[in-house]
Amino acid sequence: MYRTHTCGELSLKDLHKSVSLSGWVQRIRNLGGMTFIDLRDRYGITQLAFNMETNAGLCEQARKLGREFVIQVKGEVVERYSKNKAMPTGDIEINVTEIQILNPSKLPPFTIEDHSDGGDELRMQYRYLDLRRNPLQQNLRFRHTLSIEVRNYLHKEGFLEIETPFLIRSTPEGARDFVVPSRTNEGQFYALPQSPQQFKQLLMIAGMDKYFQIVRCFRDEDLRSDRQPEFTQIDCEMSFVKQDDILPLFEGLFKHLLHVTKNVDVDDFERLSYDEAMKYYGSDKPDLRFDMKFVELNELLQHKDFKVFNDAELILGICAEGCGSYTRKQLDELTDFVKRPQIGATGLVYILCLEDGNYKSSVDKFYTHDDLKDVAVKCQAKTGDLILIVSGKQEKTQKVMGELRLEMGQRLGLRKPNVFKPLWVVDFPLLEWDEETQRYYAKHHPFTSPKLEDIPLLETHPEKVRANAYDLVINGTEIGGGSIRIHDHQLQKKIFHTLGFTDEEAERQFGFLMNAFQYGAPPHGGIAFGFDRMCSVFNGMDSIRDFIAFPKNNAGRDVMVDAPAPISPQQLDELNLKAITKK
Amino acid sequence: MYRTHTCGELSLKDLHKSVSLSGWVQRIRNLGGMTFIDLRDRYGITQLAFNMETNAGLCEQARKLGREFVIQVKGEVVERYSKNKAMPTGDIEINVTEIQILNPSKLPPFTIEDHSDGGDELRMQYRYLDLRRNPLQQNLRFRHTLSIEVRNYLHKEGFLEIETPFLIRSTPEGARDFVVPSRTNEGQFYALPQSPQQFKQLLMIAGMDKYFQIVRCFRDEDLRSDRQPEFTQIDCEMSFVKQDDILPLFEGLFKHLLHVTKNVDVDDFERLSYDEAMKYYGSDKPDLRFDMKFVELNELLQHKDFKVFNDAELILGICAEGCGSYTRKQLDELTDFVKRPQIGATGLVYILCLEDGNYKSSVDKFYTHDDLKDVAVKCQAKTGDLILIVSGKQEKTQKVMGELRLEMGQRLGLRKPNVFKPLWVVDFPLLEWDEETQRYYAKHHPFTSPKLEDIPLLETHPEKVRANAYDLVINGTEIGGGSIRIHDHQLQKKIFHTLGFTDEEAERQFGFLMNAFQYGAPPHGGIAFGFDRMCSVFNGMDSIRDFIAFPKNNAGRDVMVDAPAPISPQQLDELNLKAITKK
Repeated sequence: MYRTHTCGELSLKDLHKSVSLSGWVQRIRNLGGMTFIDLRDRYGITQLAFNMETNAGLCEQARKLGREFVIQVKGEVVERYSKNKAMPTGDIEINVTEIQILNPSKLPPFTIEDHSDGGDELRMQYRYLDLRRNPLQQNLRFRHTLSIEVRNYLHKEGFLEIETPFLIRSTPEGARDFVVPSRTNEGQFYALPQSPQQFKQLLMIAGMDKYFQIVRCFRDEDLRSDRQPEFTQIDCEMSFVKQDDILPLFEGLFKHLLHVTKNVDVDDFERLSYDEAMKYYGSDKPDLRFDMKFVELNELLQHKDFKVFNDAELILGICAEGCGSYTRKQLDELTDFVKRPQIGATGLVYILCLEDGNYKSSVDKFYTHDDLKDVAVKCQAKTGDLILIVSGKQEKTQKVMGELRLEMGQRLGLRKPNVFKPLWVVDFPLLEWDEETQRYYAKHHPFTSPKLEDIPLLETHPEKVRANAYDLVINGTEIGGGSIRIHDHQLQKKIFHTLGFTDEEAERQFGFLMNAFQYGAPPHGGIAFGFDRMCSVFNGMDSIRDFIAFPKNNAGRDVMVDAPAPISPQQLDELNLKAITKK
Repeated sequence: MYRTHTCGELSLKDLHKSVSLSGWVQRIRNLGGMTFIDLRDRYGITQLAFNMETNAGLCEQARKLGREFVIQVKGEVVERYSKNKAMPTGDIEINVTEIQILNPSKLPPFTIEDHSDGGDELRMQYRYLDLRRNPLQQNLRFRHTLSIEVRNYLHKEGFLEIETPFLIRSTPEGARDFVVPSRTNEGQFYALPQSPQQFKQLLMIAGMDKYFQIVRCFRDEDLRSDRQPEFTQIDCEMSFVKQDDILPLFEGLFKHLLHVTKNVDVDDFERLSYDEAMKYYGSDKPDLRFDMKFVELNELLQHKDFKVFNDAELILGICAEGCGSYTRKQLDELTDFVKRPQIGATGLVYILCLEDGNYKSSVDKFYTHDDLKDVAVKCQAKTGDLILIVSGKQEKTQKVMGELRLEMGQRLGLRKPNVFKPLWVVDFPLLEWDEETQRYYAKHHPFTSPKLEDIPLLETHPEKVRANAYDLVINGTEIGGGSIRIHDHQLQKKIFHTLGFTDEEAERQFGFLMNAFQYGAPPHGGIAFGFDRMCSVFNGMDSIRDFIAFPKNNAGRDVMVDAPAPISPQQLDELNLKAITKK
């Protein structure tokens, strides 16, 4: 037995016990007469004490240990002279009588502390050392707890976790598949699932009623920052349900999760239609931790002498409370912000609501004091506030203002990491028109049900058809989304037609699923949540990578194991493949 | 809302309630005046009643429904005239007032009953219909429950579930990897994990202390019956442990699982060394539901006139209780059994212990009555028993007798599906000599620790070195196995040398792991269980396929989605690959 206790559990109630501990040497302090070692394991840190006077040999031995050596010690629990109230074990230390080095350690390439001195790439390469650091240990512990709570909640609600296959068939819709060559079926490939979408619908046809799975998914996309080629999804599907059966159940899940993992109780989730979300926040994933709703100013600001506004399809304002004393420099920063190529506005109009009741604006010469006052009233701006205005084409203006709103929320400290404002965005459009290919694409996926009352519009105004689709958004991040699926074979055919599929193409790509729908598919719907993202949003953090034990870097490489890597010519030959070089 | 209740919950306490139910039409019985429909969902079956006299129109409508139609009905819960005590809902029926067809169904290609009339291949192709059958629904429910119980037990024991990557690096040791071409790294491939072995060891180096994961693994093997290219493993690893810390903990897990899922309480698990298991049962996974231990008969039967025995390295007997009256035909069957090519014995000797105290044997002419009596005494055979004897080379003889023992257990009904006899097989040999390549292979894997006291034998008698490795066996099936790992860099190097690796080869294949071991790897060990197999063994069944929602067939194909399948030339080109045709 290597230990009687962990490094996180001894306290004054254990005084004078003979114990043995095992762990890593975190720090050695040689104070001359006394030497102290902080011994660390997953559970905490315990101080080891060595006295030069009473046991010089052992003390010398302790001083020779290095950082991250793995040792086992035996000794007695004694009360500390100077206690550390910040540590659970801070009242005691171990009067060590015996040390055994279980394994020495080379000097780590960076410090194993809460704030490490190692760069990103180095820490990725030695991920196993980076993971020893407390923040990452906590992250993985959090992820574990979250998964246990998700499973137990859904289990209690009658869901069955059912594993679906990873070696499936490639489908051309959606993102690019990773494929797996089959050795025994020459010229054929499996695909790794982008999600278990088709299988979970088949499970509903199979009568499983309520399914979930916490499951790895794969997408061979050109990687953007903070995207991973493999990611984890909480995937759910239910039969005999409508949207109003699904949303409350998963609202309950998230209330439960926030309660048990963050000790936060949230109100019933707000619901916004997609149109409202775009109108008021310029985003289908608005951050509702702060208000700052868009105000439409077309009526007030058009038909005066300012051509920019007169030509605009949409003029939007927001009121930034307490920013009425912004300097020229600060206002220029905001202008620069909206003009960044990623945002792409051509300009920014401001109205400072001065303390003396006057307004100072970048468009003073076009508008009277009363004009500006009308705007201030409509924007509910008070003395000392700042009104920011952008204009242009509708969609673009909404997007720009959405970004500006988030920036102002950030500047004003309104995006607090410990505040949680979940909401449902509903009534998404069913279809999206793609200019390039001149066809409609399914906004969610081709199995999403349109709202029944909108079906007649499929023939005349496909772009106006709303879907029974919904997203869960928390603090400006899309956490998950889902829809009621089409269970009617005829309607599914119609949608495929609208999407520009011929019967043959639909048959080739979705044939077996279309066939399955003809054997008594129940009405069903579901939702999927990004588990990595949930972990980061729950902790008020931006990066998902810190919640994944062994993530890939931005180029999709695992720099620790150095993958991907070449395989042997024999391996390739067995797979009936030949590498071609394009360079 | 599609239903107020499920089809499994209504009883007499719900009398006269207005309810709505949704489900599948299982069966329609038209009795003239009355028509009854069995409505089915995941939760059960409820009888719907239609009365021709009181509502002819509705009754006609009901009669026109087909099997597996999905319907919603409204009606009143009434007491049944003739109750069915075998069904939880058997006391009531629904007096239906309204039917809505939610989805019609084509006639299924086989019956959706406990015993279907569909053949294997057809049911695989329409797996979504096969899964509607009660036995498969129960299997998936069982699998779900087992996974929940495993997770909660390990969580309670302080284990963290940590997800490891699926896109990893190919390693040449072990079975063949499935590989995944990287589009963005020309000529490079990821591999799918055969197990998370290296990552779980890295997690121990990372100080995670106790790790588990229920995780999919992949092996590109030439498939045998009941092997799947993807399978699920309960993967566990712990730090600062010895074998005697690991076995009791997982023994506790299995006691818990058998208790909660099968209502079976088992005694402490027997432990057999590998040598004992081979000596007494001729197998490293003995079925201990019955005794029938091997008895060595060399001393008693050699040095007489029977050349076959005199030339044998080993002579083994077993006693089959109560088979002393076996006929010539039955004995011939047993002889044929051991002579089958898969078993490969050259013959079988029997001794019938007759009711009159005499013996009748196939080797009467070589042995006296007293000789045979000595054998009977040694085998603890009584009047009316049968002694079966095989001989030859040691290993072969053990194997043959192992098979014969199982066959006799089967014939005597001693392998009862509801009896569970788990045991630990310990002290496996570390290495296995391969005649073909003339080198040693690691029996478990190259990171398995030898017993410390056997390390000196590495130089002189590598084949005698025992490993700190252990298997969990239940009812003759290996459920899992594991080992204490090597945490000492030098010892690991020595083992690689014994396995015939040069330093360079070891570096190339395991370099990053070897490097990781130099940064304070703690002593650690673990175990992994085959989750699919656990499901089948717990239910006394042979096939794992019935516990997998969407299994592959014996050729590794998913015949439902028809995978693997060709991909487009563009896709192949994007991956910098070319298919080569060998036929």
